Amino acid sequence: MPPDHNSEQPTPARLEAFSDGVIAVIITIMVLDFKLPSRPGAGPFLDIFLPTLMVYFLSFAFTGIYWINHHHLIHRLKFVDSHVLYANLFLLFCLSLLPFTTSYTVHEKLDSFSVAVYACELFTSGAAFLLLSSMVTRHLRRTTANVDPTVFAMQRTVQYKSIFSLLLYAVGIPLAYWHPYVAAGDVALATLLWIMQGLFAKPEK
Amino acid sequence: MPPDHNSEQPTPARLEAFSDGVIAVIITIMVLDFKLPSRPGAGPFLDIFLPTLMVYFLSFAFTGIYWINHHHLIHRLKFVDSHVLYANLFLLFCLSLLPFTTSYTVHEKLDSFSVAVYACELFTSGAAFLLLSSMVTRHLRRTTANVDPTVFAMQRTVQYKSIFSLLLYAVGIPLAYWHPYVAAGDVALATLLWIMQGLFAKPEK
Amino acid sequence: MPPDHNSEQPTPARLEAFSDGVIAVIITIMVLDFKLPSRPGAGPFLDIFLPTLMVYFLSFAFTGIYWINHHHLIHRLKFVDSHVLYANLFLLFCLSLLPFTTSYTVHEKLDSFSVAVYACELFTSGAAFLLLSSMVTRHLRRTTANVDPTVFAMQRTVQYKSIFSLLLYAVGIPLAYWHPYVAAGDVALATLLWIMQGLFAKPEK
Amino acid sequence: MPPDHNSEQPTPARLEAFSDGVIAVIITIMVLDFKLPSRPGAGPFLDIFLPTLMVYFLSFAFTGIYWINHHHLIHRLKFVDSHVLYANLFLLFCLSLLPFTTSYTVHEKLDSFSVAVYACELFTSGAAFLLLSSMVTRHLRRTTANVDPTVFAMQRTVQYKSIFSLLLYAVGIPLAYWHPYVAAGDVALATLLWIMQGLFAKPEK
Repeated sequence: MPPDHNSEQPTPARLEAFSDGVIAVIITIMVLDFKLPSRPGAGPFLDIFLPTLMVYFLSFAFTGIYWINHHHLIHRLKFVDSHVLYANLFLLFCLSLLPFTTSYTVHEKLDSFSVAVYACELFTSGAAFLLLSSMVTRHLRRTTANVDPTVFAMQRTVQYKSIFSLLLYAVGIPLAYWHPYVAAGDVALATLLWIMQGLFAKPEK
Repeated sequence: MPPDHNSEQPTPARLEAFSDGVIAVIITIMVLDFKLPSRPGAGPFLDIFLPTLMVYFLSFAFTGIYWINHHHLIHRLKFVDSHVLYANLFLLFCLSLLPFTTSYTVHEKLDSFSVAVYACELFTSGAAFLLLSSMVTRHLRRTTANVDPTVFAMQRTVQYKSIFSLLLYAVGIPLAYWHPYVAAGDVALATLLWIMQGLFAKPEK
Repeated sequence: MPPDHNSEQPTPARLEAFSDGVIAVIITIMVLDFKLPSRPGAGPFLDIFLPTLMVYFLSFAFTGIYWINHHHLIHRLKFVDSHVLYANLFLLFCLSLLPFTTSYTVHEKLDSFSVAVYACELFTSGAAFLLLSSMVTRHLRRTTANVDPTVFAMQRTVQYKSIFSLLLYAVGIPLAYWHPYVAAGDVALATLLWIMQGLFAKPEK
Repeated sequence: MPPDHNSEQPTPARLEAFSDGVIAVIITIMVLDFKLPSRPGAGPFLDIFLPTLMVYFLSFAFTGIYWINHHHLIHRLKFVDSHVLYANLFLLFCLSLLPFTTSYTVHEKLDSFSVAVYACELFTSGAAFLLLSSMVTRHLRRTTANVDPTVFAMQRTVQYKSIFSLLLYAVGIPLAYWHPYVAAGDVALATLLWIMQGLFAKPEK
């Protein structure tokens, strides 16, 4: 009984607004973990600031991309069922750990274990997104009589891209023990690919 | 004179938006209290991270459930009276203490007193929610000529569940002095039950 | 040329949404300044927690009341002019200092100077609100042909109450040098009066 | 195929809501970096508080002005393309560094290098805004058949003002090495000019 059920669950608009609020806080408080250099001047500042900035930029871009993908996913829904709701909370939980793992990776100066933790965090968030994505597909199939097939086709494309990112993040975990900078490059590549295809892909018809 | 009164009080939509904002910040800043380990490597990280993560997950789930329940409660209102408004602010006040009590419990490594404080925080938040819930019921009875009786029936069900959770939280307070981990399990159970029934309950008709 | 001007300024809805966001963050991050006790157990916890909690509760209630009053003020506007916009930003600036002054007052254990600073902060925020209120009245007089006179009557009532609070806050500043706890009681009284009249006043017709 | 494309990208309303959320957090968490004086009393408080307050006020005003300008820019759009989306994320990234640079400048007591960093941060944010602005113009030209020419005229005016601010910020960077206080005055002037013209300019017809 969709309309009734709908009245008992948050609307997609409210789910988006809450998720946006959480993501806006996540993306902004990361900068609170920037450490002040212990001595004045350009040298100590740049020594600390430049690596921090690079990792922070990566985390910011990662969160920004999930914000965009999250919208693509949710705006298709007419109403929200419990599974979508809890999968969404789980995704927010995973993303909310990103400020801590970013801070940890910077604090440990990108040693093997910290980069592995960072890749692991990105992998878990990616997996949570894929879970949410499949919950949304399942919900759409159940509740919509004749969905435009291009919707599913497009969602499948996003899912393939997500799985490819997951592979890059998963490879980053053991790679960090071989060489942490190569692993950092590997997870940065996955984020870069999302940005590239966002900027240069033709809008789907 | 409802419409006029309405124009002088925040609308339910604005009450929800503000509450969502506060809850989004609460749920996200908890992670700022994660401590960095003092030594590098996997051992020190996991020693600190795993217990922190478990308590944080519990607090996140607790707040997430209150966000869902809060929506169920408020979306039924057509307008907001002063009692609902102040009861809502009191609930937000109680929830806003959760990052501190979570941090305290982790910092004291789940000793008896800290777990009792944590259970006490969950109890107070639960009681504040019940207060808000009864204010909403009272407001609906006063202002609505013939409310659909299923609305009250459903709200009663949520209230029974809330009272049951309150009992579990209340039991957790003395239990923490007998064995803190059992008390932590007890309050975790109350949160788990909400998630279980959210995921597996049939949508109410 | 109102409609055109309107299109160049944020709408009241957006002004409210942004202000709500800022106030939601202010009200929530105050708790980040709660200090953890240096020793475990109930004694050290309560020694630190109870005075902190009382000052925090006062700041939370103060901010909550300004959130309510802010809504009363802004929702009457059809569009926003530059003076309202900048007066609103100035009010948010004053309120944004509250977490710091709260933290300072707690840290100095309510000594004379810290309570004077706290009363001064509440006074400045109250004055900023009164400034915003008079900008809104001026804007309404200019742009609305025949405003319902009860709107101005009601706004005058709120302004009288605001001026009375300002007096109580102003008295608190010198009072803090005579006895800080009496001054703290004085500014708490001003906040309490707002809550009382909010809860027990008859809704205006 | 605009309408279809629109359905795949966040709406301008959602872009605004997310940006508002991020800006609200940025503007508010800056105050978390206020340091408590190490000794009680008026002297140590004012020594620390007054310079901090002045820099914080400047950063608050700067962010507030970008919030206003951001709205002017986005509300003209009917839908959002990828370039606008990513330019907007880049602007938010630049603004999100402001709490850190503010904190750094205060911590280094406005020495030459820290003021140069601060001017550099304002310059980068200003440049990111100009980039977003030109992406919006390009998007409007492409998608709108016959735009009201006054829209472009007005946007050009804002762009000229933005370029003038950028010049003042750019001059501030070398100026900081000659005399940091003059450089601080220079970047403060750019912000002051925005406020002045906002308050005293006639609304455009």
